[in-house]
Amino acid sequence: MDRPVRHFQEELETMQGRLLEMGGLAEERVRAAIDGLSTRDTAVIDSVIRGDEPVNRLHIEVDERCFRLLALYQPMATDLRAIVAAVKINSDLERVGDLAVNIAEAATRYVTHPPVKKLIDIPRMAHIAQSMLRDALDAYVKRDTGLAQQVLNEDDQLDALKTQVFRELLTYMLQDPTTVEPALDLILISRHLERIGDHATNIGEDVIFMVSALDVRHAGR
Amino acid sequence: MDRPVRHFQEELETMQGRLLEMGGLAEERVRAAIDGLSTRDTAVIDSVIRGDEPVNRLHIEVDERCFRLLALYQPMATDLRAIVAAVKINSDLERVGDLAVNIAEAATRYVTHPPVKKLIDIPRMAHIAQSMLRDALDAYVKRDTGLAQQVLNEDDQLDALKTQVFRELLTYMLQDPTTVEPALDLILISRHLERIGDHATNIGEDVIFMVSALDVRHAGR
Repeated sequence: MDRPVRHFQEELETMQGRLLEMGGLAEERVRAAIDGLSTRDTAVIDSVIRGDEPVNRLHIEVDERCFRLLALYQPMATDLRAIVAAVKINSDLERVGDLAVNIAEAATRYVTHPPVKKLIDIPRMAHIAQSMLRDALDAYVKRDTGLAQQVLNEDDQLDALKTQVFRELLTYMLQDPTTVEPALDLILISRHLERIGDHATNIGEDVIFMVSALDVRHAGR
Repeated sequence: MDRPVRHFQEELETMQGRLLEMGGLAEERVRAAIDGLSTRDTAVIDSVIRGDEPVNRLHIEVDERCFRLLALYQPMATDLRAIVAAVKINSDLERVGDLAVNIAEAATRYVTHPPVKKLIDIPRMAHIAQSMLRDALDAYVKRDTGLAQQVLNEDDQLDALKTQVFRELLTYMLQDPTTVEPALDLILISRHLERIGDHATNIGEDVIFMVSALDVRHAGR
């Protein structure tokens, strides 16, 4: 392997390492927001609202690394696709971090009211969304289209749970006006979790596009 | 100007033309969804739900054109940034198209109930979001950071209106349980419009980054 190629591979791997780090951070923030909501722990919820900085720093760093890789090595074919995919995945992960803040903001309001109900479906949604994110990033690193396809399939579960959460909470709201405000925040949280699943789906689609150069996006969706 | 450079410029301009076309389509779909909501016209609302195809086709085409530009011409510096920005803007516009569908889906449910109130703030939010989108794309084409900065500033108006809509509709929901369902859909629609503003903001940030190579993203936000 000649020098520039080795340097390229090293830099590509460093960039991908940072991207994974960012994925881990974003996922951790979603977990913390939902934990804070479930245990009604305002300190944990606050830490999510105030802790956006590391994800934002990594977002900028990954973008810069991608530009550097494109400008310095002018990669072709699969490498080019992998770097452009990283730019997109980077944006998706940054927005997952923002959504963790949105969840924490709704949770801040929610815990000022008595609990509407024991939370079951929302932690389940969070669990699925987190696992989709992990799998999507794993699929990116391993160039594994099978795993990426699995992420796309999991999104249906998330959609079904979102609809279920909506219907159940609507019933509470219609029966008891004191639940309107807190139930509304739970509905918003379930929407934020659905969007996190959408970002994982976007990543999965980018992986399939990158590996197979076949555009699965919008196929019968 | 030598041949490859001329070809590059031509292809760059064609790609940007398609990106603008996509922006126009996405904006038009938002307009139609809100018009259908305001006039309670289910045919218009349905046409938004069923009319996702042209935006999705353009999304794929712009992506492919960007890859081709990167692979074939290996552009440097500003051109490289312009193309990577286009890839990101393309994703943002595709999601604006999806959000138009989300608005139309909520509108479909909304019009099955008597109107909660005369819609004023929601059409105003839509108007701001559309104008932000137009300005952001205009800023991209003209490499105009001043205009891009204006888009970032407009986002505050949208946030303020979203909060106002939320508070007002909450009051209705608390006073009259028959408004819970339709008011909830209006709240969701206002959130979708806010997200469209977020996408316009992302585009504005990408333009500033592209032109000045200075990262305004996350600066004191």
